[in-house]
Parts: sequence; structure tokens; C-alpha cells
Amino acid sequence: MAIAPTETKQFIAEALEALNDAIDARDGVRALDIIKTLDWDDQRRAMSRLSHENCEALIHILGNEDAAKLLSHLAEAQAVEILESLPPDEAAELLRELPTEVSSNLLREFHAKYVEAILAKISNAGDQAELRKRLEYPDGCAGSLMRGNPVTFRETFTVGEVLKDLGEHAEDYSDRDVQYLYVINHQSILVGVLRLRDLVLSQRGIPVHDLMIPQPLTVIDTMPLSELAELFERKKFLGFPVVDAGGRLLGVVPRDAVKHETAEEQAGMFLQASGIVNGEELRSMPLKDRCIKRLAWLGPNIGLNMVAASVIAANEATLKEVIALAVFLPIVSDMSGCSGNQAVAVSIRELTLGILRPGDYLRVVMKEGAVGVINGFVLGCVLGAIAALWKNNIYLGLVVAIALTLNTMISVLLGGIVPLFLKRLKVDPALASGPILTTCTDMCGFFLVLSIASAMLSKLAGV
Amino acid sequence: MAIAPTETKQFIAEALEALNDAIDARDGVRALDIIKTLDWDDQRRAMSRLSHENCEALIHILGNEDAAKLLSHLAEAQAVEILESLPPDEAAELLRELPTEVSSNLLREFHAKYVEAILAKISNAGDQAELRKRLEYPDGCAGSLMRGNPVTFRETFTVGEVLKDLGEHAEDYSDRDVQYLYVINHQSILVGVLRLRDLVLSQRGIPVHDLMIPQPLTVIDTMPLSELAELFERKKFLGFPVVDAGGRLLGVVPRDAVKHETAEEQAGMFLQASGIVNGEELRSMPLKDRCIKRLAWLGPNIGLNMVAASVIAANEATLKEVIALAVFLPIVSDMSGCSGNQAVAVSIRELTLGILRPGDYLRVVMKEGAVGVINGFVLGCVLGAIAALWKNNIYLGLVVAIALTLNTMISVLLGGIVPLFLKRLKVDPALASGPILTTCTDMCGFFLVLSIASAMLSKLAGV
Repeated sequence: MAIAPTETKQFIAEALEALNDAIDARDGVRALDIIKTLDWDDQRRAMSRLSHENCEALIHILGNEDAAKLLSHLAEAQAVEILESLPPDEAAELLRELPTEVSSNLLREFHAKYVEAILAKISNAGDQAELRKRLEYPDGCAGSLMRGNPVTFRETFTVGEVLKDLGEHAEDYSDRDVQYLYVINHQSILVGVLRLRDLVLSQRGIPVHDLMIPQPLTVIDTMPLSELAELFERKKFLGFPVVDAGGRLLGVVPRDAVKHETAEEQAGMFLQASGIVNGEELRSMPLKDRCIKRLAWLGPNIGLNMVAASVIAANEATLKEVIALAVFLPIVSDMSGCSGNQAVAVSIRELTLGILRPGDYLRVVMKEGAVGVINGFVLGCVLGAIAALWKNNIYLGLVVAIALTLNTMISVLLGGIVPLFLKRLKVDPALASGPILTTCTDMCGFFLVLSIASAMLSKLAGV
Repeated sequence: MAIAPTETKQFIAEALEALNDAIDARDGVRALDIIKTLDWDDQRRAMSRLSHENCEALIHILGNEDAAKLLSHLAEAQAVEILESLPPDEAAELLRELPTEVSSNLLREFHAKYVEAILAKISNAGDQAELRKRLEYPDGCAGSLMRGNPVTFRETFTVGEVLKDLGEHAEDYSDRDVQYLYVINHQSILVGVLRLRDLVLSQRGIPVHDLMIPQPLTVIDTMPLSELAELFERKKFLGFPVVDAGGRLLGVVPRDAVKHETAEEQAGMFLQASGIVNGEELRSMPLKDRCIKRLAWLGPNIGLNMVAASVIAANEATLKEVIALAVFLPIVSDMSGCSGNQAVAVSIRELTLGILRPGDYLRVVMKEGAVGVINGFVLGCVLGAIAALWKNNIYLGLVVAIALTLNTMISVLLGGIVPLFLKRLKVDPALASGPILTTCTDMCGFFLVLSIASAMLSKLAGV
């Protein structure tokens, strides 16, 4: 059965209406049937359009297993939003239906106040302890991405015994990865890896110890995402066994999870750079939260803007003399801001690719300096010419041209360097580079235009 | 052997010096030894720091196989840059060493003028035809991501014959995926998939036709990335067989390739939004290209800025009367720009996640309208209060407060809608939303401040 590209899908408003009807009638079977007719995208869209009450009611009538499955199809931020709106004991029940690596990654996104309440409601002590352990790992490291519970055998087993066990417990292993089996010693230390293909092609009597790949490559549970990503690029394995500092096997980090997390990180970078702090907002979230989250970034920005504009306030006299400058103040500051942001983006990209390290200031200065001089000169000439022709005053053109040229150079240099500097300070470059750069280039731009003009004031009078 | 997180690595300048020495001495063996001591990140850094002459010389002295391996460790944009600088016949030789899906994806990034020259130099007619066929696929679709040459068997084979063939050609199959084997009929139509694990656990005499999973899920070669990504989220397969419209097996698209391409797409979105057109620039690229590429985006921007600033020019008289307004013009336009960009980012994110479709204007207007009113009011009050206190004039505060409130509302609405609108027009929302939004909000902001002020001019005199 070939899956062809779908036509541009029109969202079926009827499906949403039918779903709302089923919820109103508290008919879980009907609701589930409707959901099953929707693909995952449409499930996401439908859930984002249900009212909060109906969303909660739907979770109730579906039952834990089906509700958890639905949650696992949603975007992470959506699932978190729904879980947070439920009473802690119900959220705890749903989380228990999901694999630990999924539930812990969801919990990581919760408001801190909910996390403890939910953890306390997980009655099974083992489950609770495992979740707590998972949550201690920082986001994206091997310990938080790994799938727990790998299939292990003691090194004293024979091939025949392993195959027999696999056959007898086929049901248990059905949703676990058995391409690779892990061999441990009596202290649970990982001593080797067994490939399924080697196993089935071997004599049944030999001990797995003789067949396994000894001293396999493993990763420490604290290995961060960036290094995992590089490792998976270098080694074409489907997964790496994850061990603690003592060599005990904790789980397996799958290639897929690392790739998925990398894509999420790149998406977060874009959102952060646009002023969505923490990199996630969906329009289904409560209005209050959305406003506060955005204001948290806009608030400091208003302060930075005031600082920049104070340069204009300090030079009001010059501006009053040559009112035409008011037209060019925003153009100069905005154009340099754009040039600087290009340099910011290239630095962040090179940092991500590993081509650049936070200490490489000199290289960035050399490379951006050249672009700054050329682009600054080109843009300065263009804008200067426009200014001179507009007011028929060559000096006005000169002021604008010199200011834009210099300010472009400054902002391109700054734009290249600021991300490196922030990275060193362990501040997210995507979040903070923009506001810092804009403030500096605005101040500089205003200062350059107004101070160059005041030096030429006699030539500019009446413009 | 456990791979622990590395310490902050200092780039080894000595390695680069030694590499340059080896290149100067035309000593390929020594150069290769040095490269092998570097991890992939450092290989990327080293290559980005070699002069263009030495880079080319290094490729020569390494020989095709090792040079191709080195290229495959670099970022795609780096590899393209190096290949473009080589004579077409040498580039063709290197590309032949790489798997078709890799070489075609590199060629896709080449300047159009090089592509034909290089293709013409690929002497093997079959290789050339295969590359040309690959290049016809759009970027990111199943046909361009698939690995070619899957391991296939005719449906008339028995299990024993398949196992015998696998054993005899173990060498050939060593770098191919044999977890899944594909069963085809006499017309090369895919009729089933064989799992290695089922194969080895079966009687040797039965035909594979009885063992295979019949009518397997396949994807059409033209399926775009977004749908592949959704499919791989929904189905936990490692790959999907790719077929043409006639059902003939062309290759297998691996989960990994789809995840990797998705991450690249997210990174490109960030770069586009920052004014790096086409989403890729590395500082090792020629200065001229970098300048032109950035100016291509800045140029139109200067025009848009002029349009916006013309509103100030048209209201110079008001501004001259109330010079303090010059301080608030850039603040109002910049703050609204920031608010609007947040809405842009959320729309692009929701479009990517599939929660939003290009037609969902009404929903965006409702959701963003509410945020715009609240955030606009909060920010307007703050800035208005500052203005009123600064000049001790309540009317100045009123002008600023009303202008910022209204302009925030407008820009948040526009920011939410523009990406949907661009997506409909098949323009990349990440690239074009920012400039369009900024121009509109600047114009609007300037107009609001100056026209509200001119209506209250008598109350503002002398501020």
C-alpha cells in the first residue's frame, strides 16, 4: 500500500463538531473513533481548538491508555499544557502510561510547582524513584534521552539459553529493541554487546561471552546533546549503551532520539531569537501566560530602548536645527541592526556546527571586519546619495553616509562577537544577542548621526 | 570503552601548522595522519582555516578515497565550497566516491553553472544517469533522501537460498542495511518485506513469498519532507521502501536521513529570518560572495526603510514643534516590531508543527488580538508614564501611550497573519515576514505618534 503525498488538506470542521458532541454526550467510544479518523496533524489541530473544559472531559472519557496515546501524538508543549490543567493524580496516571524517557521529558517542561505534586501522586515507589532520577539529568543529555530497560543477559548464558529466553518472553520483548542484546557481569557492569544476527547464525552451545563484541563503545549518562550528536554522525550505530560512572548499564540512547532533540533545539533557537523565552508558545495556552511570557522579554527591551534613545534626548538641540536628520535616525539604526543580525546568525550557525569555538574572537573580527567595511561603504553611499539629492545638500549626504558606514562596521563586528561572548558566559546566544546588539547599534547610530551633524552644523542649517 | 564528555577543547593551532607543513611538502601520508588525530569538529575547524590554495592542494595529495571521506565529515556548505573550487573533473571524481544520495544533495547546493560541467565529467554513463535522475527530485523529498540499491530477492527464492546468497556475498552487503530485505516480482515491483530475524528463525525450504510481510507500507518518491517527518513520527520503522508511481522499488528512505534533514530545515529557518538568504553562509566562503549575499537582503531593506521614514519627512513640521517626539519615534517603532516578531515566530512554529494551516486567519486574529490589546496597553502605560514624567507633560505621555498601544495591537495582528499569507503565496515565511512586518509597523508607529501629536499640538508646545 503506497502512501502518496496528500492533497492540501482542509481542516474538517465537522470532525471537531462531532468530537465536541461526543464529549458533551460523555461518549468515549465515539470520541475515540473520531480521533482515529484524523491524522496526527489534525489531532494536534483539533486538540488546540477544544475548549479547556472539553479537553479535560475528553481525557476523562477516553480512559488512561487511549488518552496517553493521544497525548504522545501531540506537540510536546501541547501535551504539557493539557497535563498541567489536570488534577495531579490524573496527570500522574497518564504519565505512568508513557515510557519513562517520554514522561520525564514532559515533566521537565512543567512549572516547577506542579512537578512535585505530580511525582507525589505516583504510587508505585519504583516508578516514582525512576522518574526522580531521570529528572536530575539536564535536558538533552544521554541520561535524559536514553530508553531504559534494555534487554540484558548474564555473560554465563549460552546462545541456546538466550534464544530460548527470547522465544519464551517474546511478548515482553515485543516493544523492546532486540537487534542488540547487552551482556552484563554479576555486578551489572556492561561487558559486551550481542548482535541478533550473530546470535542466530551461531552454534547453540557456546557461551555468549565468546560471541559478544567485548568492550563496546558506551557513553556516560551525563554526556550532553552536542557531543551525542557528533558521536552519532561519526559512528553509524543505531544506539549507544549508556552507563553510569561505575560502568553499570542504565539504558540505550537511540540515534533517533538524538536527531529529534537536535531538531527541537534548532527550532527553539529560532523562537528564542524572536523573543519567545524558553522557546515554546502555542496559541492554545492561557492568554495570561502568553502575555506574561512575551512581556518578560519586551519589558527589559523597553529599558534598553530608553537607553538608546537617551542619546537623541541629549542631542535635541542639533536635531531641532536640522530636522531632516529625524528621518535618517531610524533608517541608520535599523539598517545597521539588520547587518549586525546577519553576523549574529552566522556566528550562531558556526558555533552549532562546531566550526567556531567561543574563543575564536580574532577570526570573527577579521572575517566580519572585511564584510563590515565593504557593506558599510556600499550602504552608506546609497543612503548618503539619497539624502544629498533629497535636500539638495551634499553635507547632509556626507553625515548620513559616514554614520551608516561606521555604524555598519561596528554592528557587524559586534554581531559576530556577541554570540561568542554570551556562549562563554553560558547565556543562550539566540535569546540575548538580538537585544544587546540592537541597543548598542541604536545608541551608536544615533550618536554618529547627531555628533557628525553637530560638527558640520553651519553647513546644514535650515535643512 | 566509555566515551566521557570532553573537556572544553582548545583548538590545536599546532595541528593546523603541521597540516600546512605537510601540504607544503606535498606529503599526503603525513597530512592524513594529522587529520586522523582530529575529531570531526576539529576537522571542520581546520579546513575552514586553510587557505584556498592549501585546501585544494590537500585534496590532491590525499587521493580520492581519503579526500572524499574527509569531505563527508564536513558541514555540507563547507564540502560544497571546496568542491566548487576544484576543476570539474576532480570534483566529479570525488563525488563518485560518495553514495549517490550524498553526492546529489551536495550537487543540489552548487551554483547552477557548475552542476552541468561536473555531471559531464562523470564518465560512467550509469552513474551519470543516476545522479541526473536524483537531481530531478526537489530537495528533501523521498527520492532525494533515499538510499539507493536496497538488497532485493525474487519472490521465488527459498529461505535457504537467501541465506546462502547473504553468506556468499557478505562482503558486498557489509555496508548495506540487511535488517530488512525486499522481495520483488519479475517486473521489479515490490511485493513484500523480509525481516532478517524472521528469516533466520525459519525452515530453510520455504519460499520467501510465504514468510515475507506482504503489501508493505511504501512511500512514493515524490513525497515531501514534511509528510515523511509525520510518517516517521507515526510509524516506528527504521525506513520506508520508496517506489515510483508504477510500484517499482527505487530505494529506502531511512528514518535517520529524514530527522537530519528536518534539523537542517529548522536551522535554515533561523538563518533566513536573520537575513542570510538561502540559509547558509560560512566565514570560509569568499568575501565577495558573502558581501553580495548579505547585500541582496539589505538592499531591498533600505528601500523599505525609506518608505517607512517618509512618514517622518511628511510630518517634519510637527516634529520641529515638539522635538521630544524624536526620542519616542524609534522606541515606539522598535517595541512594536519586537511584539510583532514574537507573533511571527509563534505562527511559523505552529505552521511547522501542523497545528496551524495557512487558511486559519480567523483563529490567529482572535488569539493575537487578545495578546495585542493586553500587551499594548501594558507597554503603552509604561512608556507613556515615562514620557509624561520626563517632560512633566501629561499630554506627551498620552500621545506616546496611545501610539504604542495601538501600534502594538496592529503589529501583533500583522505578525500573526503575515506568515500564513506568505505561506499561501509559497514564499518562505522565515525570510520575508521580518522585513514586511518591520516596514509596516515603522510606518504605522511614526504615523500614530506624529498625527496624534499634531492633533494635540497646542498642549505640547515647547516640549
